Amino acid sequence: MYKVYEIKQRVFADNDREAEKVREELKKEKTFLLNLMSSPGSGKTTVLGRTISRLKEDLKIGVMEADIDSAVDADTISRTGVKVIQLHTGGMCHLDADMTRQGLQELGTEDVDLAILENVGNLVCPAEFDTGAVKNAMILSVPEGDDKPLKYPLMFKVCHCLLINKTDVLPYFDFDIDACIERALRLNPEMKIIPVSAKTGEGMEEWYRWLREQTEQWIGKKENL
Amino acid sequence: MYKVYEIKQRVFADNDREAEKVREELKKEKTFLLNLMSSPGSGKTTVLGRTISRLKEDLKIGVMEADIDSAVDADTISRTGVKVIQLHTGGMCHLDADMTRQGLQELGTEDVDLAILENVGNLVCPAEFDTGAVKNAMILSVPEGDDKPLKYPLMFKVCHCLLINKTDVLPYFDFDIDACIERALRLNPEMKIIPVSAKTGEGMEEWYRWLREQTEQWIGKKENL
Repeated sequence: MYKVYEIKQRVFADNDREAEKVREELKKEKTFLLNLMSSPGSGKTTVLGRTISRLKEDLKIGVMEADIDSAVDADTISRTGVKVIQLHTGGMCHLDADMTRQGLQELGTEDVDLAILENVGNLVCPAEFDTGAVKNAMILSVPEGDDKPLKYPLMFKVCHCLLINKTDVLPYFDFDIDACIERALRLNPEMKIIPVSAKTGEGMEEWYRWLREQTEQWIGKKENL
Repeated sequence: MYKVYEIKQRVFADNDREAEKVREELKKEKTFLLNLMSSPGSGKTTVLGRTISRLKEDLKIGVMEADIDSAVDADTISRTGVKVIQLHTGGMCHLDADMTRQGLQELGTEDVDLAILENVGNLVCPAEFDTGAVKNAMILSVPEGDDKPLKYPLMFKVCHCLLINKTDVLPYFDFDIDACIERALRLNPEMKIIPVSAKTGEGMEEWYRWLREQTEQWIGKKENL
């Protein structure tokens, strides 16, 4: 079961300041928020489904699914048994900090260690708005091509972690993974880059480890971690 | 060789009226404008390259490549020998009618039968702005998933033609092509839907035929068509 929430749009003079407030609130609540971004169809929901299955015994997880107007993803994620809400952006192509704050309020963070925001499928606009998340991660899938860092540089600059997904289909695409990694690192030398296949599970352990470490650094060590 | 053009942003009270003006101008100039949209990495540039090679003997073609700030695609397309300019949107996630008008002016339409605008890779924002194009086409590639009509309905509603691209990798993905077509037609019963592989060329003849017919209906029959 999940709730559908229609986000009210408000214009904030200073989205960055609002984002800082969201982070302060998260710190107080001991909730880590990950903002997950990508193109449509890169596998965000599949990555998320696997991640929840792997981590839900150790961390209390809550998910916010942002979408223009369907509830396809919330439907899928709700089957994992974690708390999930659907955010309808009313045609908006991204989430800003105020929208995220509304979503967090609706989700309820008091019993959530790890909150994940699945942003609108879009490599452009979501990169321009700090949502207030503690860390940003993005997924680039093999079929999209190794030139994407050249074409959507801001997205690669603002993300702390890049998953190169669908490595299982590498044999069928002209995708130069070394070139892709080099291009991403040129934009963002600190970026953590993990090639994965969310379908077969290959590489996913490193991702779970990264996410768990980031969460733990933010909320403090949990006994069961 | 191609020019890079930095688009000036202007706010138009009525983008739809501006779009109508662009179309009137195109009609006078006997230039057909196609607005080509899709997610990042769905194969717009590959489709375009093949289309140009196939049609450039029959039609005088001009291309406008819209991108946030690279010139990767203009570089590729310029090798086909047709007139191409790069439009930099300055971070904007879409083109509106005024931006398109600026682009057409820069491209020069007096000797162009078929102008193609490769819009910013994005399934959300470009759908919301009438560019002034005579027809809209979109590409959905197999790796993106058959649920995209459910998640980005407006894009499917505003397009006259849908290419389902990368059919050569259908065996490696869970993509239900019949379900996808049914979902698209439910949103837009008039939509022309053509499954293609721009890589192998499969299905592309039907697309060339559609594009040639649309152009001819707009500019009048050419002797060599």
